[in-house]
Amino acid sequence: MTANTPRFTKIAAGLPSTVPFVGPEAQERTRGKLFRARIGANENCFGPAPSVIAAMQSAAGEMWKYCDPDNYELKQALAAHLGLSAANVVVGQGIDGLLGVATRLFVEDGTPVVTSLGAYPTFNFHVAGSGGRLVLVEYENDKESLGTLLEAVRRENAPLVYLSNPDNPMGSWWTSNEIVEFMSALPSTTMLLLDEAYGETAPQGVLPPANLIRPNVLRFRTFSKAYGLAGLRCGYAFGDADVIANFEKMRDHYGVNKMAQVAGLAALHDQAYLKKVVERIVAGRRRIAEIAVANGLVPLPSATNFVTIDCGSDGIFAKKVLDGLLARDVFVRKPMAPGLDRCIRISVGLDYELDIFAEELPKALTAARS
Amino acid sequence: MTANTPRFTKIAAGLPSTVPFVGPEAQERTRGKLFRARIGANENCFGPAPSVIAAMQSAAGEMWKYCDPDNYELKQALAAHLGLSAANVVVGQGIDGLLGVATRLFVEDGTPVVTSLGAYPTFNFHVAGSGGRLVLVEYENDKESLGTLLEAVRRENAPLVYLSNPDNPMGSWWTSNEIVEFMSALPSTTMLLLDEAYGETAPQGVLPPANLIRPNVLRFRTFSKAYGLAGLRCGYAFGDADVIANFEKMRDHYGVNKMAQVAGLAALHDQAYLKKVVERIVAGRRRIAEIAVANGLVPLPSATNFVTIDCGSDGIFAKKVLDGLLARDVFVRKPMAPGLDRCIRISVGLDYELDIFAEELPKALTAARS
Repeated sequence: MTANTPRFTKIAAGLPSTVPFVGPEAQERTRGKLFRARIGANENCFGPAPSVIAAMQSAAGEMWKYCDPDNYELKQALAAHLGLSAANVVVGQGIDGLLGVATRLFVEDGTPVVTSLGAYPTFNFHVAGSGGRLVLVEYENDKESLGTLLEAVRRENAPLVYLSNPDNPMGSWWTSNEIVEFMSALPSTTMLLLDEAYGETAPQGVLPPANLIRPNVLRFRTFSKAYGLAGLRCGYAFGDADVIANFEKMRDHYGVNKMAQVAGLAALHDQAYLKKVVERIVAGRRRIAEIAVANGLVPLPSATNFVTIDCGSDGIFAKKVLDGLLARDVFVRKPMAPGLDRCIRISVGLDYELDIFAEELPKALTAARS
Repeated sequence: MTANTPRFTKIAAGLPSTVPFVGPEAQERTRGKLFRARIGANENCFGPAPSVIAAMQSAAGEMWKYCDPDNYELKQALAAHLGLSAANVVVGQGIDGLLGVATRLFVEDGTPVVTSLGAYPTFNFHVAGSGGRLVLVEYENDKESLGTLLEAVRRENAPLVYLSNPDNPMGSWWTSNEIVEFMSALPSTTMLLLDEAYGETAPQGVLPPANLIRPNVLRFRTFSKAYGLAGLRCGYAFGDADVIANFEKMRDHYGVNKMAQVAGLAALHDQAYLKKVVERIVAGRRRIAEIAVANGLVPLPSATNFVTIDCGSDGIFAKKVLDGLLARDVFVRKPMAPGLDRCIRISVGLDYELDIFAEELPKALTAARS
């Protein structure tokens, strides 16, 4: 753009034009061949419940109607599920979409925002898009460091701090008690965005009670992970009703698609299927850990639908392992932040996909070592 | 919120907490009964093509996968359809979502943005959300006034101007030549957002050629209207590749749901069905116009999937007619801006819905006159 073309905002003009969001499909196009195992994006390979698939199929012919902009039925069902009032809940286009709105509510040019170096990149993308200044603190023992986050919040007088529990990309977690203690230690003027995307796959005692509502905490959950609906973009946030009401000012009111409303509602009603899927995810984590151990690597404990594996050396070595797996048609990803980058991250896959991983990992390790 | 709770941005704090987006479902909940005719939201009652429904049903089980963040296949198909390169196209969450991104690219606190008083409220909502200052010009003879828009752009040195062609809520249009003349008269530093949501239902000679690309024009189209997929949130913008590239900085990369990608692609490939639907929409417009005339009212010419009807008096009278129809279980809407508010707006419906409209309109008129 020159001086004679329309002028972007100061913030937009300052943003990088390339972004870190490369899907497996783009990699397949570059490679010129398909992956044999899709175990890199923390998707739920077991898919949505048969009852949910049937609900979607049945609703396909209704997609000419705009969605209900209030997300009324789904919001009511979520509120009942959480033991909250509907006024405590907002439904959005996945956690991504909701983090975008939350960011625009709290972040303007120069606002300091605290998060962990290596945590969720889409949040950072939203903060940058609002002109925020990211304050990045290091992980500690492969966990987001509550103490360091708190120090940074206080030092910067930050109105916003992001924490995921359980954590992506490390799979680690804090207990409910520790999280509540963190909430209590935060300045009342700091909003905590608590990302619980992997909440359903966590053991008892990790998630604070759903009805724990504070004026400076927003909690985020999704149908993308345990419910197996990543493609439909449906998540929700819950918190203090006065804070939740502010989402109305900025959210895209017709933005949650009608298929997501139908599928989300059906998924919420099929808790029996969810329970079975979570059992399969737990079994998948065990299998991935066994494969890691069999190859002399250290699987990190995980409360998510993936296992992060310490490759036992530095980031350069782990990158070679990753590249070796990709070259062998196994789609996986890895943490990139210093210290975390010694690991690769393997999502729970179908049995045949983990068989392929088990077969190809030793070859990728041998190649990386040579 | 008090001084002891997290601080919203200046812009967020200044926004109204109530919004104008009330869906027919909310009205049904308030009324305690369903509408008999849903002809108020400019939806396409004929629905998506059978081929599209089949594609959605077939893909339902795949919704556990994240969408391709590049929207590659759909973007390629759209580019081919438009006779453009994929670099000229961006796919988004409906025109609403794309207008949101475009607004954030060009609007910061205080930016003057020109549009017509009574034009698309969601665009105004986005502008307000970015702190923009709306400069509203009046319609002229029930059309967005190109001359007045241009004057306002020049007077305000506005970097952004919105125009829909064909127009919602009046159904009016400018010819391709007139639109191109308007583009040429605009300062090169002003970006035109040209909303062509109703482009497929317009007669020949209304849309400028698809390959007309200028550095200060972004054109928006959608699968929500003629393609009958409003519920899925899928639209696209096309324009200069350098401008389009900027959407990467701000868009929600995983935001277009996978079902929309599947359905959009299938819809684009079924142009025979589109042609038939457009014929039915044209026939529906004719029927609505006849009903209006039979009741002594004046239907405005329409290039869209609705007909705006001049009720022959003022806004108070038209509001009474609207309320009478709603009370008789007919969901319709009306323009609200002074001058335009003498009208009601009727979307093309199924035959039985237009039968109900034909039956209830005279009663609503009698009630309004009494």
